[in-house]
Amino acid sequence: MAQQATAAGAAGMAGMVAGETAIAAALQDALLYRGYEIADLAEHATFEEVAFLLLEGHRPDASELDRFSKELRGERGLPDRVSAFLDESGELFRSGAATAMDLLRTGVSILGHVDPECQDNAPEAELNKSKRLLAKIPQMIGRMQASIEQRDAVAPDSSLGHAANLFKQLTGRTPTEREERAFDVSLILYAEHDFNASTFTTRVIAATLSDLHSAIAGGIGALKGPLHGGANEAAIEMLLELREAAGKGDSVDSWMQRAFAEHRKLMGFGHRVYKQGDHRAPILHELGRGLAQEKAEAGDASFVELFDLGERVQTIMREQKSIHPNVDFPCGLAYFTTGIPIAQYTPIFVASRVAGWSAHVMEQHANNRLIRPGADYTGPAQRAWNA
Amino acid sequence: MAQQATAAGAAGMAGMVAGETAIAAALQDALLYRGYEIADLAEHATFEEVAFLLLEGHRPDASELDRFSKELRGERGLPDRVSAFLDESGELFRSGAATAMDLLRTGVSILGHVDPECQDNAPEAELNKSKRLLAKIPQMIGRMQASIEQRDAVAPDSSLGHAANLFKQLTGRTPTEREERAFDVSLILYAEHDFNASTFTTRVIAATLSDLHSAIAGGIGALKGPLHGGANEAAIEMLLELREAAGKGDSVDSWMQRAFAEHRKLMGFGHRVYKQGDHRAPILHELGRGLAQEKAEAGDASFVELFDLGERVQTIMREQKSIHPNVDFPCGLAYFTTGIPIAQYTPIFVASRVAGWSAHVMEQHANNRLIRPGADYTGPAQRAWNA
Repeated sequence: MAQQATAAGAAGMAGMVAGETAIAAALQDALLYRGYEIADLAEHATFEEVAFLLLEGHRPDASELDRFSKELRGERGLPDRVSAFLDESGELFRSGAATAMDLLRTGVSILGHVDPECQDNAPEAELNKSKRLLAKIPQMIGRMQASIEQRDAVAPDSSLGHAANLFKQLTGRTPTEREERAFDVSLILYAEHDFNASTFTTRVIAATLSDLHSAIAGGIGALKGPLHGGANEAAIEMLLELREAAGKGDSVDSWMQRAFAEHRKLMGFGHRVYKQGDHRAPILHELGRGLAQEKAEAGDASFVELFDLGERVQTIMREQKSIHPNVDFPCGLAYFTTGIPIAQYTPIFVASRVAGWSAHVMEQHANNRLIRPGADYTGPAQRAWNA
Repeated sequence: MAQQATAAGAAGMAGMVAGETAIAAALQDALLYRGYEIADLAEHATFEEVAFLLLEGHRPDASELDRFSKELRGERGLPDRVSAFLDESGELFRSGAATAMDLLRTGVSILGHVDPECQDNAPEAELNKSKRLLAKIPQMIGRMQASIEQRDAVAPDSSLGHAANLFKQLTGRTPTEREERAFDVSLILYAEHDFNASTFTTRVIAATLSDLHSAIAGGIGALKGPLHGGANEAAIEMLLELREAAGKGDSVDSWMQRAFAEHRKLMGFGHRVYKQGDHRAPILHELGRGLAQEKAEAGDASFVELFDLGERVQTIMREQKSIHPNVDFPCGLAYFTTGIPIAQYTPIFVASRVAGWSAHVMEQHANNRLIRPGADYTGPAQRAWNA
């Protein structure tokens, strides 16, 4: 007999355990990546160390990290077919037909066609493919953004690590030290989160013994949604809408009361797992505020003002709805402060989460069983076609 | 608290109920599509009627069916970007880099970029998109196969329905009456199967409020796997390997005993849901045998011999392992008899299942909640990065 959940419990599989993982644990009071707590990683590790940890399973020593970093820098080039598609992608974006996530989904799908080990699910081949994907996605995002802006793409900068190179791809400039650290930490925070919707998607796909690129293309499709990765873009768009309304004399409080009355879903708040708040959020909030202060010291106070507005929104949400911000709220603010184009916030999430997705595909394949749940049928009773 | 399954139960979510659906019920003694049993549909309905039933929710009357059929025939044309990609796809296939399923995944992903309602998740827009996908996928498969064979694509034939037109796309000829019926029934049998892995994938993606094309591209990635749709190709490949061995003096029995001893997984057998056999299998087996007899009457007995071989394999599996064939075993045999290229058997599955996938995306969006299960953490206990 099928194991029944209560009707409430079954909706969205809330409170159900779908399987096991040794990669991460999203607990109420901690988020562990292979045992290391996220605040510890945000303070002491780099994204490249975290990506190694997720993909290869242990903390790298100095020579392993050096080797991994060189491997990634050596794999940044894009195959011609992928470049050709991305060079045409800007037109699709500008017309409003496709989002950057749609275009990245196609780009990764095409990348699979030219990966020399595409059909090989052996552990070594999957690790190789994972590193190539991790290395190439920043370039894919950069090339797409160049096409969107109708400018030349930025060449990969081998003097820069994963985060700083991606930052340069998007903005055309090398980040300040503070920007680089904040951006690197944001990638650390986004890298992995156990059975979130996109990672779960990659595992369901992989469990049919399909390949890594099929799984990652599916993960990108899932992450696109505003209830998942798309929330970092939606959160800053909401805040900018609020700022504009405030500029026309509306107050934050009245705007929020209207949003509540209209049952508008405010993106960047609440989390399926964390009921007392997402502990990634304050880490990124502090780093983002530092970026805004750096801008203020350089003469532009508008970002500090936007942070103040964001804090007012957070306070109202906490006091009136008991809902805390998740990582997407401060992320949107931090990225906006650096001048990164809003449409690429969710693709940046991919440039990080692909490490976690790949680790899950490899873990699934290492001990595979088809993921095939049952469903409760609520349709019509049996009836004859020719009644 | 998370609802725990036993370790055995949790693996692959076997025996767990992930949610509700009114679209289909895969029961031990029946497979219902909105209440109609699959044997009834196979005998009395057409694939186009079944697709309407799944997408629009009720059995069509004559005028609705006429309208639906005209809509599908009117939407068979491919956008230039999709054609251009498919015209280059044969090279990727012939080199062994990409499978037909990989290429179809990219084709659907690109189709999303030019669908006029891509970003619109409203019910009417999703129904429109579903019909366009259903109408265009046979042409996409046909155009890809033409590129693989380095010949001109077959023009859509508006005198033919969904199944016969797809058949002609793949073989260059109009099917016989018997072939058309068998092929149509195979599409009826493949159209829907509640929370199978690919459909579950589309629901997890859709539940983030991502779009239909993202969900379908993910579903194609999942269906590719040999533990899922890929089994129809794997099953006939195994049978052909067995036939070749038998031609060299090996016996079926000794070949099978060796396969058992090597723990080789024989594709097209067993099913997560059906413990007493997949009731779709005998329906398609009978129709396939009829096709083989038609070939024998025309002077070629080789297909009847292959069916006999297949029946011997089924008998050994049933008697020695108590494992029954699933729908993919007779499907591979039936398609092989018609001369359809083996590499397109799983894409044909897509040309049918896309109806079910689309129905599930619409059902998910009609009453959405993010699908985000929990996981049991089996990794290292918390530890410090700088220990």
